[in-house]
Amino acid sequence: MTAQTDHSEAKATRTRISVDAMGGDEGPAAVVAGCSLSATLNDDISFILHGDEAQLAPLVARRKELTGRCEVRHATDVVEMDDKPSQVVRTGKDTSMWSAIESVRSGEASVAVSCGNTGALMAMSMIRLRKLPGVNRPAIAVLYPSANPQGFNVMLDVGADIRADADDLLRFALMGTSYARNGLDLPRPRVGLLNVGTEEHKGRSELREAYDLIRDCHEDAGFEFVGFVEGGDISGDSVDVIVTDGFTGNVAIKTGEGTASLIGDRLREAFEYSPLSRLASLLAYTSLMRLRRKIDPRRVNGGVFLGLNGTVVKSHGSADATGVSAAIKLAAQLAESKFNDKLAARVAATLPDGEATG
Amino acid sequence: MTAQTDHSEAKATRTRISVDAMGGDEGPAAVVAGCSLSATLNDDISFILHGDEAQLAPLVARRKELTGRCEVRHATDVVEMDDKPSQVVRTGKDTSMWSAIESVRSGEASVAVSCGNTGALMAMSMIRLRKLPGVNRPAIAVLYPSANPQGFNVMLDVGADIRADADDLLRFALMGTSYARNGLDLPRPRVGLLNVGTEEHKGRSELREAYDLIRDCHEDAGFEFVGFVEGGDISGDSVDVIVTDGFTGNVAIKTGEGTASLIGDRLREAFEYSPLSRLASLLAYTSLMRLRRKIDPRRVNGGVFLGLNGTVVKSHGSADATGVSAAIKLAAQLAESKFNDKLAARVAATLPDGEATG
Repeated sequence: MTAQTDHSEAKATRTRISVDAMGGDEGPAAVVAGCSLSATLNDDISFILHGDEAQLAPLVARRKELTGRCEVRHATDVVEMDDKPSQVVRTGKDTSMWSAIESVRSGEASVAVSCGNTGALMAMSMIRLRKLPGVNRPAIAVLYPSANPQGFNVMLDVGADIRADADDLLRFALMGTSYARNGLDLPRPRVGLLNVGTEEHKGRSELREAYDLIRDCHEDAGFEFVGFVEGGDISGDSVDVIVTDGFTGNVAIKTGEGTASLIGDRLREAFEYSPLSRLASLLAYTSLMRLRRKIDPRRVNGGVFLGLNGTVVKSHGSADATGVSAAIKLAAQLAESKFNDKLAARVAATLPDGEATG
Repeated sequence: MTAQTDHSEAKATRTRISVDAMGGDEGPAAVVAGCSLSATLNDDISFILHGDEAQLAPLVARRKELTGRCEVRHATDVVEMDDKPSQVVRTGKDTSMWSAIESVRSGEASVAVSCGNTGALMAMSMIRLRKLPGVNRPAIAVLYPSANPQGFNVMLDVGADIRADADDLLRFALMGTSYARNGLDLPRPRVGLLNVGTEEHKGRSELREAYDLIRDCHEDAGFEFVGFVEGGDISGDSVDVIVTDGFTGNVAIKTGEGTASLIGDRLREAFEYSPLSRLASLLAYTSLMRLRRKIDPRRVNGGVFLGLNGTVVKSHGSADATGVSAAIKLAAQLAESKFNDKLAARVAATLPDGEATG
């Protein structure tokens, strides 16, 4: 069942983004508000919005900036946060998430965005979009605030899979390089392998094996390999791409987010402590807002699924309009740069049949 | 070879702390400065200082507050940061680190403190102090700043070993409970198992197994089990003790430290941006210093090795005088509360032969 709100004024050149409007913690209103914000900021994008038409149509109708740029596509079901991925891929055909991925599969949209259940989104994306040739495990990559000139580092995997063997880690290095080159404009990214020490003899056996594989291919693949890095380097300036398994990467980003949030709370308390400190906080208001913009996780919201035939951006489950808008901005950038084609070419070029797997 | 600087005035009741003066990044001067600071703050402690007497004796002589409270014990060798633990346990008998542990083994001192190579310190401690009955893998526990009323959470293991099976994780829960009860004054700590999601079906198999083991023993062991927790909970207020393997825990604390350091740098930049923001930073000076005291990692410096016949405190390799002094303060608290005897009793009581391992 398809309902087209209005597309009489649609630009032919607009990049279409497929958006799963359901399943986020904040509900469809936050997602529509995010689309609306993005539409205001970027005239070159349009949307296919998947979900319950009865809820979505009135929300879209209230946003003038979405007129002619947002098609609502009805989906009866919603993937819940506690649904099992293995279950959802069998029974989830009527969900907004499935429908959103389907628009990428069919070529109607260049990229899909969802705030829903990460495991289900990855499982569905793998089933419907399929893995790129040469990729065994896809990965989720995020931009992490760092001391580097570009302001961010790329880290992957942060939760597509809880496992990764040495071969997977090598492919993460290649995919991360491609993302850093296209997404952060770094012609020759520095890649590091996350470990508990920087000495070559330390760490799990798959890490020592991955170290050798990555070192041996870095020249041909056009990146620098800085070797093992530690948790502190994720936000540092010694490396641009951090390669790790999805369990470790997921714990690391959530630890970093939690720590940043604790410091933010403590900072507010410090400024509320006395009349003098309250005055200071007024004077420092613009400085603090500037800081907030630099480290606000909502502004770099969006993990990208790498290694599939199509791009899927996973936004935070708790994303508000600003968060959704950030994820859409990232999705649009990646679609416009034809990033996925470049990544596929990079993996294929570096790993001809059998190379580096023996 | 033993040289006693002066102990004519030593109090009989003083808690003796064995300090490895070499091997830290800042050299013996920082360690002696830390001892000196601690001696000023706490009249009830005295020191045995292990290392090169030619360097240490003049440093100690210059500190009046150490007179009669600091014995220098000569050790020829130093464990370097890149020495392999397996090598050091065979050839390290003449090192200051070995000597520092030996003082605990012989009962001369209640606790040892070192800023040196973590792996070597753990390996030597295991060989010389031996594991407590019922403990297969010792763990390093740290206090992590949190939103809880006590200001910190306990996390373990953060790097004693890169592996941990379900049984080890159960013992970490018991040891962490004991540490939280004695070190943070929490009669019934809330314990969580670190994972990539809070749903019971998620995560590695050893985590699902550990979940069941911990759930089954929490009533008898006197703690609350909140189940799986995520990286964001490490600094949150939903849990007091975070249980994880040493690889994940090590990456998590270093990620958190790196992120806090990046935010600190950005905050300074924000306040240096304009004349108004510089004025604000002057007015907010005391508030910012108060904040700094709350989140300064140097003030909670010191991982504690749990599960051995004796207490060993590992300070940051890069600890300055403030950092060393914080580690010594923690060591003194633990020695005075007879924490290690209580922990041994706790593990023994909860795990009679064969229980929970079947």
